[in-house]
Amino acid sequence: MNAPAVSFRRARVDAVVALIADCLAAAGLSRDNAAAVAELMTEADLTGADGHGVFRLPQYVRRLRAGGFNRTPSITVDRTAPATALVDGDNGMGHLVVKRAAEAAIDIARETGVAWVGVRRSNHAGSAGLYAELPVRHGMVGIYSAVASANHMAVWGGKELLLGTNPLAIAVPTGAGPMVLDMATTIVSYGTVKKYALQGLPMPEGWLIDRDTGEPITDPARSGQGLLLPIGGYKGSGLSLMLGVLAGILNGAAFGRDCVDFNADDTSETDTGQLVIAVDIARFVPLDRFTAEVDRHMADLRASARLPGVEAIRLPGDRRRECRTERREAGIPLPAALIVQLDKVAAELGVTPLFER
Amino acid sequence: MNAPAVSFRRARVDAVVALIADCLAAAGLSRDNAAAVAELMTEADLTGADGHGVFRLPQYVRRLRAGGFNRTPSITVDRTAPATALVDGDNGMGHLVVKRAAEAAIDIARETGVAWVGVRRSNHAGSAGLYAELPVRHGMVGIYSAVASANHMAVWGGKELLLGTNPLAIAVPTGAGPMVLDMATTIVSYGTVKKYALQGLPMPEGWLIDRDTGEPITDPARSGQGLLLPIGGYKGSGLSLMLGVLAGILNGAAFGRDCVDFNADDTSETDTGQLVIAVDIARFVPLDRFTAEVDRHMADLRASARLPGVEAIRLPGDRRRECRTERREAGIPLPAALIVQLDKVAAELGVTPLFER
Repeated sequence: MNAPAVSFRRARVDAVVALIADCLAAAGLSRDNAAAVAELMTEADLTGADGHGVFRLPQYVRRLRAGGFNRTPSITVDRTAPATALVDGDNGMGHLVVKRAAEAAIDIARETGVAWVGVRRSNHAGSAGLYAELPVRHGMVGIYSAVASANHMAVWGGKELLLGTNPLAIAVPTGAGPMVLDMATTIVSYGTVKKYALQGLPMPEGWLIDRDTGEPITDPARSGQGLLLPIGGYKGSGLSLMLGVLAGILNGAAFGRDCVDFNADDTSETDTGQLVIAVDIARFVPLDRFTAEVDRHMADLRASARLPGVEAIRLPGDRRRECRTERREAGIPLPAALIVQLDKVAAELGVTPLFER
Repeated sequence: MNAPAVSFRRARVDAVVALIADCLAAAGLSRDNAAAVAELMTEADLTGADGHGVFRLPQYVRRLRAGGFNRTPSITVDRTAPATALVDGDNGMGHLVVKRAAEAAIDIARETGVAWVGVRRSNHAGSAGLYAELPVRHGMVGIYSAVASANHMAVWGGKELLLGTNPLAIAVPTGAGPMVLDMATTIVSYGTVKKYALQGLPMPEGWLIDRDTGEPITDPARSGQGLLLPIGGYKGSGLSLMLGVLAGILNGAAFGRDCVDFNADDTSETDTGQLVIAVDIARFVPLDRFTAEVDRHMADLRASARLPGVEAIRLPGDRRRECRTERREAGIPLPAALIVQLDKVAAELGVTPLFER
């Protein structure tokens, strides 16, 4: 299969933020909420999580206009124990709900050393790494997980779409800024598949299999017939399942067959569950000792001998950091097909198009 | 390669417990501590974690006699914040230290909703699932991780043994007892490789690669030249790394190049780090609703349509539960080579051999 040539154009970061904020406000969000979501979505683009940034704007706008998101949510934080809280998102956009949960986790962990904040009645919140990273700015470990907003995986051995790519993100401070692991429990996230579809690129074998035959699927246009494969076979399936129990069932939120596929349904409440854990590092070791030790060990791993053919050793978060530096300077690269979609959304909402900003 | 025939003999569960307890006591542990370790080691055998049960007895005895373990540890629990504690294991056997940490986590979580208990100056504690399961008996979620007691993995792209198989175990209650995910961050644990070596069985490709060539190793006798492969490539490597940071560096315990290979060194203090998290379910949803929802969804997954050739859908902990039922009745199957080793240890310590009990 030949990959068609894909043309990209760079957009200024402030223009992307402003486009998102204007579109979301035009679709009914308060200016403050629109600005908060715009910052988080653009941060996803900056850090290379292209499937979770401005790419999602057309879908979010469609859902806001269709009434699938509550445009004026009243998000509540119920402190259920000294170190726990349960956030009710009132069906608001996930970015707003999880940001509120992370802020609560940081406040609580400052008092109690650790906080576990569950979320119910939320929605798709984009890039997992964003929320794990928030506690890091306060000298804390951040952990985030979620029930994915569509089921693209089966339980190991099964063929029905009953599990999500349920992500896990873990972030810790280092001398050079946050080190962030942000992984789906599948080989790739469905966002990556959508990115390949938008760009018309074939996918490697091993990402998706056909639900009926079990054979590999490499054409992203056929992804609707496929199952995403978990990392480590039954292990990744089990990890996705357990993260789904913790982020979903534990919070009284949706799991399994009760999950709404928000790619196919713009109106039903998804009752998405998420969780944020914050751990105050200084309750275990002094923060400066922690970062010095992490730095020492990471430098050792980076400098260690490499397998044949490997040019450099990459650690979790390296790509995020490099991408952020490069894109903040050079702008965010957007494929032509996405720009067409964004212009269409802007026109529908009567908002200034991206490249006229 | 032909696998040699392996002969097994079943040992009564109470005989295994008594053999372990007598050997550990003869090697210098108090009767109470010897009994506590014997219960946990036998539980590993009962639940099918064969690489972590009585199989480890010869090594543990050797280490106790060589002074690598503190035979009379004074384990301390420092409550560093309302919801956190740091346990100093005083270089005692890991089973004793982590059991104490899990008990502390349960006590704290009852007050604060969640507890995060870190461990330093501990040792190899055997099967991860054991410790995640302890909070479940109190209506809690249990999570356990550890820095593995030897480095059998490289960072992704590297070839030096600087990372461990750092396990993650997550356990939740269901109507039918605990559901336990217990996974190494590698495709298999080194315990599994050792079990194959003891039985003289060839391993499938994909478990280990040669450090110098990157080619697969299938002969377990050559495992010393190999690297265990992480689940999901760079993802499993990143997960192992982050779990090591949380279980090791955060607790001021060993990580990376500072880890002591306890298979090769019987005397140096390992400074093993571990962590236990307990979450009180009732702070989020009523416990009976939680178990009912887990049961409903697990039944749905189990009954879901299967891929061609799959006979039954297995969920995390199924094998543990079945194994436990079967072995409690029929006894614990031990390969002939292990029985020879156990008889030798018993003779050295002047303790009644297993099959004379």
